[in-house]
Amino acid sequence: MRMLTVGVAGASGYAGSEALRLLLGHPDVRVGAVTGASTVGQRLGELAPHLAPLRDRELVETTPQAFADHDVVILALPHGASAQLAAQLPDDVLVLDCGADFRLVEEQRWTSFYDTPHACSWPYGLPELVRADGSKQRDDLVGARRVAIPGCYPTAATLALAPAFAAGVVAPDDVVVVAASGTSGAGRSTKPHLMASAVMGSMSPYGVGGGHRHTPEIEQNLSTALGQPVTVSFTPTLAPMPRGILATCTARLAGDPAAVRAAYERTYADEPFVRLLPEGEWPATGAVLGSNVVQLQVAVDEHAGRVVVVAAEDNLTKGTAGAAVQCLNLALDLPETRGLPTTGLAP
Amino acid sequence: MRMLTVGVAGASGYAGSEALRLLLGHPDVRVGAVTGASTVGQRLGELAPHLAPLRDRELVETTPQAFADHDVVILALPHGASAQLAAQLPDDVLVLDCGADFRLVEEQRWTSFYDTPHACSWPYGLPELVRADGSKQRDDLVGARRVAIPGCYPTAATLALAPAFAAGVVAPDDVVVVAASGTSGAGRSTKPHLMASAVMGSMSPYGVGGGHRHTPEIEQNLSTALGQPVTVSFTPTLAPMPRGILATCTARLAGDPAAVRAAYERTYADEPFVRLLPEGEWPATGAVLGSNVVQLQVAVDEHAGRVVVVAAEDNLTKGTAGAAVQCLNLALDLPETRGLPTTGLAP
Amino acid sequence: MRMLTVGVAGASGYAGSEALRLLLGHPDVRVGAVTGASTVGQRLGELAPHLAPLRDRELVETTPQAFADHDVVILALPHGASAQLAAQLPDDVLVLDCGADFRLVEEQRWTSFYDTPHACSWPYGLPELVRADGSKQRDDLVGARRVAIPGCYPTAATLALAPAFAAGVVAPDDVVVVAASGTSGAGRSTKPHLMASAVMGSMSPYGVGGGHRHTPEIEQNLSTALGQPVTVSFTPTLAPMPRGILATCTARLAGDPAAVRAAYERTYADEPFVRLLPEGEWPATGAVLGSNVVQLQVAVDEHAGRVVVVAAEDNLTKGTAGAAVQCLNLALDLPETRGLPTTGLAP
Amino acid sequence: MRMLTVGVAGASGYAGSEALRLLLGHPDVRVGAVTGASTVGQRLGELAPHLAPLRDRELVETTPQAFADHDVVILALPHGASAQLAAQLPDDVLVLDCGADFRLVEEQRWTSFYDTPHACSWPYGLPELVRADGSKQRDDLVGARRVAIPGCYPTAATLALAPAFAAGVVAPDDVVVVAASGTSGAGRSTKPHLMASAVMGSMSPYGVGGGHRHTPEIEQNLSTALGQPVTVSFTPTLAPMPRGILATCTARLAGDPAAVRAAYERTYADEPFVRLLPEGEWPATGAVLGSNVVQLQVAVDEHAGRVVVVAAEDNLTKGTAGAAVQCLNLALDLPETRGLPTTGLAP
Repeated sequence: MRMLTVGVAGASGYAGSEALRLLLGHPDVRVGAVTGASTVGQRLGELAPHLAPLRDRELVETTPQAFADHDVVILALPHGASAQLAAQLPDDVLVLDCGADFRLVEEQRWTSFYDTPHACSWPYGLPELVRADGSKQRDDLVGARRVAIPGCYPTAATLALAPAFAAGVVAPDDVVVVAASGTSGAGRSTKPHLMASAVMGSMSPYGVGGGHRHTPEIEQNLSTALGQPVTVSFTPTLAPMPRGILATCTARLAGDPAAVRAAYERTYADEPFVRLLPEGEWPATGAVLGSNVVQLQVAVDEHAGRVVVVAAEDNLTKGTAGAAVQCLNLALDLPETRGLPTTGLAP
Repeated sequence: MRMLTVGVAGASGYAGSEALRLLLGHPDVRVGAVTGASTVGQRLGELAPHLAPLRDRELVETTPQAFADHDVVILALPHGASAQLAAQLPDDVLVLDCGADFRLVEEQRWTSFYDTPHACSWPYGLPELVRADGSKQRDDLVGARRVAIPGCYPTAATLALAPAFAAGVVAPDDVVVVAASGTSGAGRSTKPHLMASAVMGSMSPYGVGGGHRHTPEIEQNLSTALGQPVTVSFTPTLAPMPRGILATCTARLAGDPAAVRAAYERTYADEPFVRLLPEGEWPATGAVLGSNVVQLQVAVDEHAGRVVVVAAEDNLTKGTAGAAVQCLNLALDLPETRGLPTTGLAP
Repeated sequence: MRMLTVGVAGASGYAGSEALRLLLGHPDVRVGAVTGASTVGQRLGELAPHLAPLRDRELVETTPQAFADHDVVILALPHGASAQLAAQLPDDVLVLDCGADFRLVEEQRWTSFYDTPHACSWPYGLPELVRADGSKQRDDLVGARRVAIPGCYPTAATLALAPAFAAGVVAPDDVVVVAASGTSGAGRSTKPHLMASAVMGSMSPYGVGGGHRHTPEIEQNLSTALGQPVTVSFTPTLAPMPRGILATCTARLAGDPAAVRAAYERTYADEPFVRLLPEGEWPATGAVLGSNVVQLQVAVDEHAGRVVVVAAEDNLTKGTAGAAVQCLNLALDLPETRGLPTTGLAP
Repeated sequence: MRMLTVGVAGASGYAGSEALRLLLGHPDVRVGAVTGASTVGQRLGELAPHLAPLRDRELVETTPQAFADHDVVILALPHGASAQLAAQLPDDVLVLDCGADFRLVEEQRWTSFYDTPHACSWPYGLPELVRADGSKQRDDLVGARRVAIPGCYPTAATLALAPAFAAGVVAPDDVVVVAASGTSGAGRSTKPHLMASAVMGSMSPYGVGGGHRHTPEIEQNLSTALGQPVTVSFTPTLAPMPRGILATCTARLAGDPAAVRAAYERTYADEPFVRLLPEGEWPATGAVLGSNVVQLQVAVDEHAGRVVVVAAEDNLTKGTAGAAVQCLNLALDLPETRGLPTTGLAP
């Protein structure tokens, strides 16, 4: 196969540099344009010294011209900046947007959390999402030329709970998700609460009471799995680690307890990137660092009448840039796993 | 006032050494016997080099004789070891047990989680616990000579949710608690999953689905607050930090949303160690390290129909040894705050 | 004794908030004015939530008037800002400067590292510094009204090496100091290399080859100990922890190996805040967090012909604000240890 | 090329599991036998869950028979256990020993640090080591069938200092190396000082005064570079991070300062895994996590008369298992960089 030219817009942020890390390991890809905003003219060697093979690359300005003759463009831009660039890229170029702009189908979900107009939605890039009819979201991604890559929290929460909803074994109105994220999930801009001195040795929530912008995305996905509306209470917390999300997800049991684990085994049996652990083993973000794998464990708490599912992922890999590469593979008819690590870096 | 002689049984563990740290700062206390098991004969300078003033103290064997002529004995012993020693200490000696042995009132709660016989229960050492009749648990502690110090998770979860139950604004049957703890909560014995290489950069749950022994204690406390049974889904997780618990606690809204925050303000207005933060500020374990303060924030998520309360505490201070000193003060008629830090160590 | 009114200029930085933490625990002190610059009008509850007793204090502007009728003013200001304020404070007010402005005696040492004019020097606030004649720096501090508080690295390196120089057992021309500091040493301003995502899991040097501004201060101190010039190669590194300095200090053996440890024992036998550990025990920053103690271990490497001394301190306590309080005690004729913790927070 | 069968003896330790991580990414390798001792019968999914593709592999006993028909065997065994197994493996099997047993050429260096008899020495697996005659150690590795993989500290210290010695610009008798290592360098066995609660937030030395077993290995290498004996003062410290070594290495300047940087540029210009950073950029262990790259920066401190070189590496990759794979490639005439990551995982 000929080499694909893949550019990255917003390469100095964490999502962008993770995309470059993965593209460097993809056998069918040649890294194309690497663009920034305030970082134009800087070398990747200064900005992202871990990307040694690209150390002498300079960031150029983010323009449609920068991506001329590209096969694929990955957008890792601030919220609201994707639509304009995407509109100027040819229709046959595959555009993968790591931002939130094109994820929400219903305008009302959008407007309750964002103050900009709702753009439109693109096929949603979570291949493993099981839908109410038993099909999977993967079907919408084969051959696509515009894909909205999921948020990092929604990826973990959705993969954790969708099988239970699709199987009808949990109730739609009392879902609780509490998730801990490493600091890279909050991006690269310097803020007081993200300073090392403030973070190390401390945990704290950010946003309590439903205000997080990922809530409607989780609800959209679980509603897709159930075939009817689901509401979610979501609390994100910041953990003293650079990468990783651990999502503890619970819903009220509304079916046969024995059917719960079976639903997960059935849904994910053939998925290369979703791993239901054997009973007695627990997900750990440290086991999936740099890997595109999500680890799950599920339990039924009959005493409390709830299903509890815990998911561990790398927020930058499966949670962002790995999902983009996975969708690239699907859209362009490559093997879905091409270039994607399933081995993590530990300890 | 004359100086109290206070001994610590199990001083080489984290709870015991934290008790010693606090006792060294208590103006009315003289540190008495310091005992261990496998560490007998070792100096505190080797075992707990942060306790500089006690560096030359040697640990002696844990026997009743070691505590002869003591006013107070703090037990920081493995599960099951407290009852025997306590029985051999005179009735007028104040015994504060940091273990689980005497916390649960109902035998049935005990036997569902422990395989030893249920001993009995002692007054429960959480002074700020508001009860269904509006009184507080503090009443049971004044003058007591045996006190069961609460577990670290139950302290956070109970202080987070009891006011809502006492005020009748949440429902008793869909309570979810997800809490992250630093590693000191798991004690000092060497285990593979507690090694630095395994913990740093990683989060993981331990026990999913209701099996944690702290669940019945949380349920007992919330039932005390409500005046009728409460069931709880509790998931503990291990965070890459040495100290601190962040507990995210949610319950179904069952009353006037406007009454929720008012219940917390009313309950904790005069409490020296429980701090409801102003709206817009979030609890952080890093703000209470070494301090006896619990920080709380409460929010009503009307969209999801749930009350969300987040609590931050130091698991070894307010979560264990600070609570013991607070109960010592109450039991012996000292000012409740004597010797207890409200200032944390940060950053 | 009447209560002293002590103000802090620059209270929103880490040195300033650590000074407040210690002052809150000092029995003879009342916290006076608390001033800032860009933070004027903010509450300490927002800026430093660990200082619970001061949560409702608002920062006021840093002016001489703010400190009217104060007994003591602690300056925790950016480099270059201390001189002007100090000049406007009455001569009988004790002024303790945590900045670098007044530390260097010789103008030439100053001008090789700073581009501002050399102000003058104040008595140097390291009481335990042993001088060539066997006296200690403490003598200059009793009754002083202006004191220059040492830098955090120089405190560790000086206490580690001065006894060997004063005893004449090491050579002055091949001193090497390599030190690791927690991130709080770099201050509170937000910089990319101090972000949690950049720091956690990583170590890096900052400045290699002698350019660090603390080098002349270390050399000045060791020259004081020896009575003739000493040159030092100093490399600071940034460690993934919020607090603490571990300084590994080596010098060429130039005397009787057996005299080395004896020199340390003699120098520090009666020092309440410097602890030479028993042979076989190693200093750890984790053992002195929040404490004013410096731990030392010394060894003679006869094979390499060098003396190696390792020092552990809390950079904000003994390395900055604790030293200020210690000098306050000395200057105002209080017991030197008053209000200063010798117990650390661990684990 | 046909696939090579590569087995790993001691696969449950950190060096062994890192070898497996790299072998999984090597295009010419098939993972053969995976052996342990106390872990025989356990699945890699339990022991090393990050190695997802090998999750169902069970560890078998470490015997010569287990490695029948293998092309390569990587030994990651405790000190002293390699010789016996190696002696039973056929001469034409490539054996790469990650332990210390075969590194030291001179018996006297061995016996001063080890209490077992000196076995013999194998070709030393540090290809980039420049020798006094300007050749490199790589020459000894092409076609070798027994290779002693260097220790993690010696790799960093040697690459940092050898060019200066080979160029004759530093003196042999006052070399100081102070290095910080992540906890994985201390191995996987559970010890109190390696517990997360003890390590996080703390730095400490382990061994002060020349007693570390890596000292003679560093001296051997630098003597090779200089062509005459070199003595080294080496102090290792433990840093609160799982991986990485930052080595600060200094030696007395003994030549033209301008020749120093040139020596490094010349030595490493064509090395794929050693990177001399541009002036003004600093090595960081966080930039080489999981990568086989060593970052260097060199400076001449004319004031102190010393050359200072700082090296950052991943102790498990270039410091151990990456070096083994690099030597495998050299020994078996594969491209030296085959299967070895030069991209790190960051942040």
